Amino acid sequence: MAEKGIKSFFGPDYREVEVGKIITLCDDEPLLLASGAEISSFPVAYQTYGNLNRDKNNAILVCHGLTGDQYAAQKHPVTGKPGWWKQIIGKGKALDTEKYFIICTNVLGGCMGTLGPKDINPETKKPYNLDFPVITVSDMVNVQKLLVEKLEIDKLLCVIGGSMGGMQVLQWATAYPESIYSAVPIACAARHTAQNIAFHEIGRQAIMADPNWCGGSYINEKKFPSGGLSVARMTAHVTYLSESALHRKFGRELQDRSKISFGFDADFQIESYLRYQGITFVERFDPNSYLYITRAMDYFDLTSEHSSLDNAFKNTKASFCIVSFSSDWLFPTQEAKQIVRALAGTGSDISFVEIETDKGHDAFLLDEPEFYRTVAGFIKKVAKKAGL
Amino acid sequence: MAEKGIKSFFGPDYREVEVGKIITLCDDEPLLLASGAEISSFPVAYQTYGNLNRDKNNAILVCHGLTGDQYAAQKHPVTGKPGWWKQIIGKGKALDTEKYFIICTNVLGGCMGTLGPKDINPETKKPYNLDFPVITVSDMVNVQKLLVEKLEIDKLLCVIGGSMGGMQVLQWATAYPESIYSAVPIACAARHTAQNIAFHEIGRQAIMADPNWCGGSYINEKKFPSGGLSVARMTAHVTYLSESALHRKFGRELQDRSKISFGFDADFQIESYLRYQGITFVERFDPNSYLYITRAMDYFDLTSEHSSLDNAFKNTKASFCIVSFSSDWLFPTQEAKQIVRALAGTGSDISFVEIETDKGHDAFLLDEPEFYRTVAGFIKKVAKKAGL
Repeated sequence: MAEKGIKSFFGPDYREVEVGKIITLCDDEPLLLASGAEISSFPVAYQTYGNLNRDKNNAILVCHGLTGDQYAAQKHPVTGKPGWWKQIIGKGKALDTEKYFIICTNVLGGCMGTLGPKDINPETKKPYNLDFPVITVSDMVNVQKLLVEKLEIDKLLCVIGGSMGGMQVLQWATAYPESIYSAVPIACAARHTAQNIAFHEIGRQAIMADPNWCGGSYINEKKFPSGGLSVARMTAHVTYLSESALHRKFGRELQDRSKISFGFDADFQIESYLRYQGITFVERFDPNSYLYITRAMDYFDLTSEHSSLDNAFKNTKASFCIVSFSSDWLFPTQEAKQIVRALAGTGSDISFVEIETDKGHDAFLLDEPEFYRTVAGFIKKVAKKAGL
Repeated sequence: MAEKGIKSFFGPDYREVEVGKIITLCDDEPLLLASGAEISSFPVAYQTYGNLNRDKNNAILVCHGLTGDQYAAQKHPVTGKPGWWKQIIGKGKALDTEKYFIICTNVLGGCMGTLGPKDINPETKKPYNLDFPVITVSDMVNVQKLLVEKLEIDKLLCVIGGSMGGMQVLQWATAYPESIYSAVPIACAARHTAQNIAFHEIGRQAIMADPNWCGGSYINEKKFPSGGLSVARMTAHVTYLSESALHRKFGRELQDRSKISFGFDADFQIESYLRYQGITFVERFDPNSYLYITRAMDYFDLTSEHSSLDNAFKNTKASFCIVSFSSDWLFPTQEAKQIVRALAGTGSDISFVEIETDKGHDAFLLDEPEFYRTVAGFIKKVAKKAGL
């Protein structure tokens, strides 16, 4: 069903890479987006790990965060790095590929093969750029639902993800309550806060202030807003770490020198680390995708959409495992607790775990054995309940 | 002694404004900076409020933060706004101009009249730009000491300031312990943390990534890196506010619209607020000054300079009033407590107050009656002790 070897291009030098399995959705009927725009015959890139069983009830959908993609458990074709959730997906791991069929799909608006702003607009035969419709987390999830249907899966054993991935999990639980047995929203919230919107807005302004952004048409001009995208990434990256993690990792340690240089080179290790984060990101991410996906996160607000959070979850029957990290200041534990409170009225099976760690928001991507054990235990329980 | 009406220039249109009282220092002997560079015959801009008494023992030095200047208690010549500390300086206020002689001077490296990177380098007859020597908080304080000596004041009744101003206060206490009766370091720390260096580095990278920065020589090219400077300011500004203050002030409120626009305009109030902060800052601040002054803050570290913080304060006899704000995450209360602990061994008279507020780091510039009362009470006590 899926085509393979579709190419996409990346970075300031626009080099091409293969982005794996691609499926074309909405050939017959267009998909109506939250904005009112419609899209049809669009590509969705995804990867799967493990095998779907005969009853098709062992599928787990993994949702990625802002800058993630479908390469959750395998070498990344652009960076060459291992999958972003290799610690949790694999043989004998929390999401055991011997038992479960893991699906991970690049979100709508992304740049790893699923339709996004750098793709060709069929109407103009040129890249969409800013003509791409503004998308929401609900649009992303509607696309995932269509993919899951194409794979002939009626009900997912679990939907799991961290950060923006967690938002997608919550969206699944409210929009498709009958289609999931369980949900694991990690390090997320039911709505994006003013502070989080602020940090996203800084990133967007950094990109848009770069003259090489060209009003969004950098592809047409064969330019690339590396400087702006790099600053956006640096800003976001600081928010993913805790003050104590930064102190533990870097403190005021100097980089390859014994004294301060009295200049603007990267004297401190934290400076060279951030610069590296910025530079490497530019190689693998599309600046306009960054604008669209941050915007989707800013718009996420289950409370306003359903008049109350309790109401949002009123039809939910799924089992929940809500996870927060003690030092995450982007999505602090109090946000997770609001989800727990709203779910309390549903009578669903709910567990809530705050993992003690100093690693900040990024903890869901890092080595956190207690977190793995939490997920593994929950999935095992849910699988048993589902008769697996 | 001071010249008046010296002009300086600001913003993308390089308009000229008067910057008030100017004094020329080091005509005879150059000042040796921490970097090893020397400066001589350089201008220092300052303002005074109230009158110096006959005994010259009623002088209070007010030290400004990163983007402040000498216009602490009067209309600003560029922005037209009231002084940044008008709530605390004036007749009958905590720093009572009927009783005390208040001095506030633009820091070395600044852009409001004191020598900075946009001034003419006497050797090249062109603006210094990045040939300006990298400066430290100790250099700033050494310049202030020279000014105070020129004003024939042997001992300051008090040195007071918040944020980078607080760093200067701590520097005074360690470098010139005999020259101050008392010290009020507010919302600051004895060293800049990795997280704070990270946010400064983002601001600097935003400025330097702007092609109009021209490698620092934008004045020569008649350009101005407005975009980069604006992003730098937005980034810093978010760190000055607390999450709860942002939530209380803005939440997810929309700006002049009832629905989200599905676009990249400023839908949310927090976005238009931040954009406004960026745009107005560009009108009043020099981009290279921003680089130099953030660097000076990054370099500040009394502990490493004196091998231990206890050691830094060992000759201090001044009375201290250390102030922190409960929601300040840039300079949290634990940093203030480290100063308190280090001072404990000196036998000095030390008070420490944590003001309960949700206003974040910016609280020292905002309406905080308990903070004013704390400062007023301390100054009254110190004045009495000094025999005023």
